[in-house]
Amino acid sequence: MPRKICSEKACFPIDAIKRLVGYYRDLKHLKEKGVNVISSFSLSEILGVSPEQIRKDLSYLGEFGKRGVGYDVEHLIKNLEDRLTIVRPSNAVICGVGRLGMALMGYAGFRDLNIRISAGFDVDEAKIGMEVAGIKVYHLRHLVKVCKRIHPEVAIISVPASYAQDVCDRIISVGVRGILNFAPVSLSVPNDIFISNVDLSVELGALLFCTRMGEAGGAKG
Amino acid sequence: MPRKICSEKACFPIDAIKRLVGYYRDLKHLKEKGVNVISSFSLSEILGVSPEQIRKDLSYLGEFGKRGVGYDVEHLIKNLEDRLTIVRPSNAVICGVGRLGMALMGYAGFRDLNIRISAGFDVDEAKIGMEVAGIKVYHLRHLVKVCKRIHPEVAIISVPASYAQDVCDRIISVGVRGILNFAPVSLSVPNDIFISNVDLSVELGALLFCTRMGEAGGAKG
Repeated sequence: MPRKICSEKACFPIDAIKRLVGYYRDLKHLKEKGVNVISSFSLSEILGVSPEQIRKDLSYLGEFGKRGVGYDVEHLIKNLEDRLTIVRPSNAVICGVGRLGMALMGYAGFRDLNIRISAGFDVDEAKIGMEVAGIKVYHLRHLVKVCKRIHPEVAIISVPASYAQDVCDRIISVGVRGILNFAPVSLSVPNDIFISNVDLSVELGALLFCTRMGEAGGAKG
Repeated sequence: MPRKICSEKACFPIDAIKRLVGYYRDLKHLKEKGVNVISSFSLSEILGVSPEQIRKDLSYLGEFGKRGVGYDVEHLIKNLEDRLTIVRPSNAVICGVGRLGMALMGYAGFRDLNIRISAGFDVDEAKIGMEVAGIKVYHLRHLVKVCKRIHPEVAIISVPASYAQDVCDRIISVGVRGILNFAPVSLSVPNDIFISNVDLSVELGALLFCTRMGEAGGAKG
């Protein structure tokens, strides 16, 4: 995964993109609660990010807020939707319908970002044809055919590590350019493919080490 | 989450810790396959990290490898186990036994790092007393009593966003200092608590934006 992503107009650091996507979701929840205007200080409390960081991130969108007035929530949401292209719905597929894959098929949070999980794939005959959270499971051998119909833009890999590279190659061959990988293994992809690894045991292991190390020393920002 | 964690002996950047935990797991799999010595180049291919980065990360452990000889796999594993304190087993608990929580209770990867999920907690009476992957589910009101017995060092939060702060506060009150949070919300924690957020919709949304933005421009390392 590169550290920055650029169009002809602007460059966004990946970390800023992730924060902006999170702001969008949280702002939408604020608006549902009836909040129309918010100060950068209150926004900072809700988002758990410093006001300086928020101002810096929003400046990528050309947003600067007005001192003493705060941000117009609806305007910000609209701007984030446009700039982050969230307004355009997308399809995603999940490869590997084990426990984790099934949980992800039913994960409500993706809808907040207009992302629809449209199909699941597995090789276990017992799962083929079943529906999980209303989403059909197909045999992996039908990946090309199904994807020609639904045009997924992103895919989730939740197969065991030893199958992940093969599945990854197949997904790329059907034109998917963004992959969220849960398999605990490093995948090789061409330069124009974006891959994000969510490695659950590494996250938990690193936390554990931090708490133990923190006993002896301390955390430094 | 701070960017660095320090003991009296050394400081480790959090990103390096995560990579080192990943190296440990992958090296153990290599050893199981009978690999005893590995060059930094081959290690780089397997781990998907540049040889320079690996050398730099391992130098935190005082490891420098021998030019033209490579790394002794067993020695590296031993060193990582000792320095990352992986050799000491730990208990973890999961709060929120929904689809995702259930998947995490059965997630095999935690065992690679000597982490045992010892209990699940929920408020849904239908789930109390059941076992998921051999792990018992308790009512959240028994958190204190159960944790006094199993002494969890880390906890996973997989409850809906609106309950997450309350659950987080309770977990901290029983002495847990490391939290892996899957709820899509920012949690407030004291400075000596380590929290890591896995925000699945943000990850997928950011990937989607990158692929769309990448069409117009390009990725920059």
